[in-house]
Amino acid sequence: MKKFRRSGRLVDMTNYLIQNPHQLIPLTYFSDRYESAKSSISEDLTIIKEIFESQDIGVLLTVAGASGGVKYIPTANEDEIVQSLKQLCMKLEDANRVLPGGYLYMMDIIGNPKLMNEIGRYFATLFAGTKVDVIMTMATKGIPLAYAVATYLNVPVCIVRHEHRITEGSLVSINYVSGSTKRIQTMSLAKRSLNEGSNVLIIDDFMKAGGTIRGMISLVEEFNSNVVGTGVLVEAEHTEERLVDEYISMTRLSEVNTKEKIVKVEIGNFFEKLKNHKQQVQED
Amino acid sequence: MKKFRRSGRLVDMTNYLIQNPHQLIPLTYFSDRYESAKSSISEDLTIIKEIFESQDIGVLLTVAGASGGVKYIPTANEDEIVQSLKQLCMKLEDANRVLPGGYLYMMDIIGNPKLMNEIGRYFATLFAGTKVDVIMTMATKGIPLAYAVATYLNVPVCIVRHEHRITEGSLVSINYVSGSTKRIQTMSLAKRSLNEGSNVLIIDDFMKAGGTIRGMISLVEEFNSNVVGTGVLVEAEHTEERLVDEYISMTRLSEVNTKEKIVKVEIGNFFEKLKNHKQQVQED
Repeated sequence: MKKFRRSGRLVDMTNYLIQNPHQLIPLTYFSDRYESAKSSISEDLTIIKEIFESQDIGVLLTVAGASGGVKYIPTANEDEIVQSLKQLCMKLEDANRVLPGGYLYMMDIIGNPKLMNEIGRYFATLFAGTKVDVIMTMATKGIPLAYAVATYLNVPVCIVRHEHRITEGSLVSINYVSGSTKRIQTMSLAKRSLNEGSNVLIIDDFMKAGGTIRGMISLVEEFNSNVVGTGVLVEAEHTEERLVDEYISMTRLSEVNTKEKIVKVEIGNFFEKLKNHKQQVQED
Repeated sequence: MKKFRRSGRLVDMTNYLIQNPHQLIPLTYFSDRYESAKSSISEDLTIIKEIFESQDIGVLLTVAGASGGVKYIPTANEDEIVQSLKQLCMKLEDANRVLPGGYLYMMDIIGNPKLMNEIGRYFATLFAGTKVDVIMTMATKGIPLAYAVATYLNVPVCIVRHEHRITEGSLVSINYVSGSTKRIQTMSLAKRSLNEGSNVLIIDDFMKAGGTIRGMISLVEEFNSNVVGTGVLVEAEHTEERLVDEYISMTRLSEVNTKEKIVKVEIGNFFEKLKNHKQQVQED
């Protein structure tokens, strides 16, 4: 590789860091890559750090010592989050989404990779300091958001399914009671998709009574693993007792009137959680 | 926003371009963002272009005129693609993947967002010059790769399913014959997930006889739309006539011996297609 000037290094390093979030990159990697002194690389990183932090692209952590290096933690700007969630609420309030039975059509939102990546980044911002080994989600509609979060946190995804598939080998299955319909259902996960003792972040698209997520929590227990958080894109207002205590929601569906075709959506508890979280980090 | 020096602009612009692939960004966007003259922005872009192209991060297209601007087209380096596909073949050849019935366990590969993003980038490199309006995939296992391709091409995804879901409104369903088992199956797509006259790129994880993909092609026709390409992660060697003529495969499974636990995997036709494609572009 030819020797780079500072301007070239800044462009290439920025790209490299963005492609490799939550990963410790030794300074020697960059000094070898650009045939440059470590002192020059450190100066480059100071410039990148300043821009990343002032522009809310993310945090650059520098770890000193022999096994040290630099780690890029993607974050998002609070104002941007609020604006983006407000827009999402407005989109969700479109009366044309109302389907028979009070369901909402959401495939245009879930089918938008850019939007899923944005929301994934918000979850990754909140869970940046949590030890997460794997994201768990439920097929089908939770998958896009789960992968977005996993990309930013640099962890794998395991997919829980309702049906049994022959292409996944041995499974662990559990029965659970759907919170809304009270029916007994089955969910299963391939035995080799989740290691014992993993720290699991559950991500799903929708939560009403919380039966599906309660089921996923039981499944995590079956694997002797540990749920470190639960995040959903849309939480529906629910009059009965919710089956899940702790969760983060991006938006909250407060009303669906099928007859009048009225949908009311507000920002979920995400933002409060982010603020509390920031405060805690500052107090520590 | 405070005024940036060149070094700061290079970092922020690199991030912005990478986050917004296949999107025309007017130069005025950047000159406003940094309160800088267009001539400075043009110089910045020349530096970024040189590094993006020498490092195979992608191509920067500049479109002149009043409605002009700059567009970032992500690409991947050919040597990197070969190395990465060779590694993938080796991973797939692991004897522990063999499941009863000659199936292969692939959830660790599909569950790896970083790997899916890499492969998605390769497909996006090949289809960079094709007019693609939407990616179509089949639930569940095609979804991660489909979103990766869609992210790099900046287009939405529509998800075809075997089962009917009440949360998607009116559906278009078709029956198709599974190429391997000869059974009649159903697949459906929400009516409002695909506009008439769309250019559709089909992405899936696995193809044997091609029945599922043949089904998706029929479904695209039902929507008066047009298939512009088909890409799969793994193609299985198939002795009978294949139901799909034109497809791109990243890897080819040439042997699965369940008894002896032997799996043989080679690089698929992707690389040939990429080379032909490059040659055509150069001859044009």
